[in-house]
Amino acid sequence: MTVLNNQATTATDSLPPPGSGESVNKTTTDSLPPADSRERVKEFMRQLQDTICNRLVELDGTGTFREDEWEREEGGGGRSRVIREGTVFEQGGVNFSEVWGKNLPPSILKQRPEAAGHGFFATGTSMVLHPCNPYIPTVHLNYRYFEAGPVWWFGGGADLTPYYPFAEDAVNFHLKFKEACDAHHPEYYPVFKRWCDEYFYLKHRQEMRGVGGLFFDYQDGTGKLYRGPHQDGPAAVYSEKVGDVKTRSWEELFAFIQDCGKAFIPAYEPIVKRRREMKYEERERQFQLYRRGRYVEFNLVYDRGTIFGLQTNGRTESILMSLPPLVRWEYAYHPEPNTPEAELYETFLKPQDWANWNTVTS
Amino acid sequence: MTVLNNQATTATDSLPPPGSGESVNKTTTDSLPPADSRERVKEFMRQLQDTICNRLVELDGTGTFREDEWEREEGGGGRSRVIREGTVFEQGGVNFSEVWGKNLPPSILKQRPEAAGHGFFATGTSMVLHPCNPYIPTVHLNYRYFEAGPVWWFGGGADLTPYYPFAEDAVNFHLKFKEACDAHHPEYYPVFKRWCDEYFYLKHRQEMRGVGGLFFDYQDGTGKLYRGPHQDGPAAVYSEKVGDVKTRSWEELFAFIQDCGKAFIPAYEPIVKRRREMKYEERERQFQLYRRGRYVEFNLVYDRGTIFGLQTNGRTESILMSLPPLVRWEYAYHPEPNTPEAELYETFLKPQDWANWNTVTS
Repeated sequence: MTVLNNQATTATDSLPPPGSGESVNKTTTDSLPPADSRERVKEFMRQLQDTICNRLVELDGTGTFREDEWEREEGGGGRSRVIREGTVFEQGGVNFSEVWGKNLPPSILKQRPEAAGHGFFATGTSMVLHPCNPYIPTVHLNYRYFEAGPVWWFGGGADLTPYYPFAEDAVNFHLKFKEACDAHHPEYYPVFKRWCDEYFYLKHRQEMRGVGGLFFDYQDGTGKLYRGPHQDGPAAVYSEKVGDVKTRSWEELFAFIQDCGKAFIPAYEPIVKRRREMKYEERERQFQLYRRGRYVEFNLVYDRGTIFGLQTNGRTESILMSLPPLVRWEYAYHPEPNTPEAELYETFLKPQDWANWNTVTS
Repeated sequence: MTVLNNQATTATDSLPPPGSGESVNKTTTDSLPPADSRERVKEFMRQLQDTICNRLVELDGTGTFREDEWEREEGGGGRSRVIREGTVFEQGGVNFSEVWGKNLPPSILKQRPEAAGHGFFATGTSMVLHPCNPYIPTVHLNYRYFEAGPVWWFGGGADLTPYYPFAEDAVNFHLKFKEACDAHHPEYYPVFKRWCDEYFYLKHRQEMRGVGGLFFDYQDGTGKLYRGPHQDGPAAVYSEKVGDVKTRSWEELFAFIQDCGKAFIPAYEPIVKRRREMKYEERERQFQLYRRGRYVEFNLVYDRGTIFGLQTNGRTESILMSLPPLVRWEYAYHPEPNTPEAELYETFLKPQDWANWNTVTS
């Protein structure tokens, strides 16, 4: 274990051993990945972790990241970084990993049966930040890349979970990711925003986790943009209306992912700066601890990243790094009417068109 | 909502409407349930809730139960009771429910496909207590009964989750349930104790939830005692060695369940009385909050009762009543060697023969 200050460590690169992946054969030549696809994506994911960690340390002012490098027995490993008891961040984890192996996890095979019988390679960076101040939202980011024989795709996104209702924060977050999307395809944001609303949903609570952002998966540059399970949902309906999108190359998708990664700091930093000096009392703290319970419920009951990690014999401490440092459950809690807490439930935990929200009149 | 003091409310009984269940046809006449099976089991489950709540209120001294009666849209309902911020119990929930309907939940169909196409009836009482004092263990109890067409069974058990290692507490808990078992069949305890060790196991942590107790399911009086999924585990191996057990009638199994229910107070009360005056410091409190995280992880990731409840459109607040009031997660925590916390991990979170533990030399 090494302690990171404002400097990122430069760990020795270790590529997957020869033969752990397989040669790529795909009928659509447009979307063939380059020979060094895995190395390039992995390098981007590591740099994204470095860039974000450095910026967060500056933003926090006092906290630093502890780093654990770890290896996975079946192949691969990662760098887990955790910041604790900072000035801004009560706890945050930024995790890079690359894993490879012979046997695909069932959660992947279910979605992409054509990947069966091939070795796989997956790399990604994920992050969850739990701020001290209840006026600063919790935020999550995850980008990932997957290859198995002839199959490859990118996935990921970012979503914001406020405790108190500030429309301008939700708007800023959405606009920055919309800009990143629009630079690559006009239909990315409308589809991936709806997909995010659908994914970060707690069915047993009939609540969204927060105000959403972007979510996408299985993006291989072909066919329809929505590839999720709910064929009757708003994301599927919208994507169906758009129809098959012109095939995009591996390079185009990788460029899109990189821009999404770069959008995070401009999307989140202004929110932190606006809220971090706001005074709060025990009431706001207690509500924050209570709402953090929903984060735990979502991650343990629904989150595919968590399930994938546990199924692939991932490193438990890194997978569960996303859980908040302190959490409260209260039986049958309901916010008082006409309070900020009630406004959160009524407006912010329901899908909204944040990119077109009128913050002047709201 | 009504507030319960030391008095249990007497809610109006409401039996499943005619036609919601179905006539019972089974080849083994020995194990036919009586015509009033559902009413009798339900009445027992309600009384068990009353008896336990009354005793807990006495034991706590200051806390009282809040009661919510609720109805389930698809059929049935329940009484949820919660005690909060008592002298002994920081939070506790004791829940009675009876549900019926036409469509069996997938979690049941997977285990008992012969129940397909029949209406079902299920009733049960479940309880989780989270004490204030870290020296008092958390405890869980659940008994349930299920009928669907020709199929019926009893299930349930009780298990203890200490934060600090006191062998005499684990021994007392196991001995009381062993007595209840032994009065009905000499092989119940050896099988159901092993099944409990197997069930309350966190695979991703490679830890047991606590010191176990009893766990059983699908008990219809026929065949082998173990009916769980792990055919190579110690419970299955032991049960296989015992072989098919002489058929027991519905009445015999119901009598067994009732004795298990009655064993709870003698199993748990002496532990509370021994530990409740023990002074503790911030260190013990922080360890308790940390270990409560494992309870959350188990209940949300593995617990079949929770999954069944969420799948059958159960009442979320009642299902998640088992979650602790305050919980802490800490990245990569390990107890210091040669501490009580380390002893918990090394001895108490591994299967032990508590019924034969020598508390004098331990």
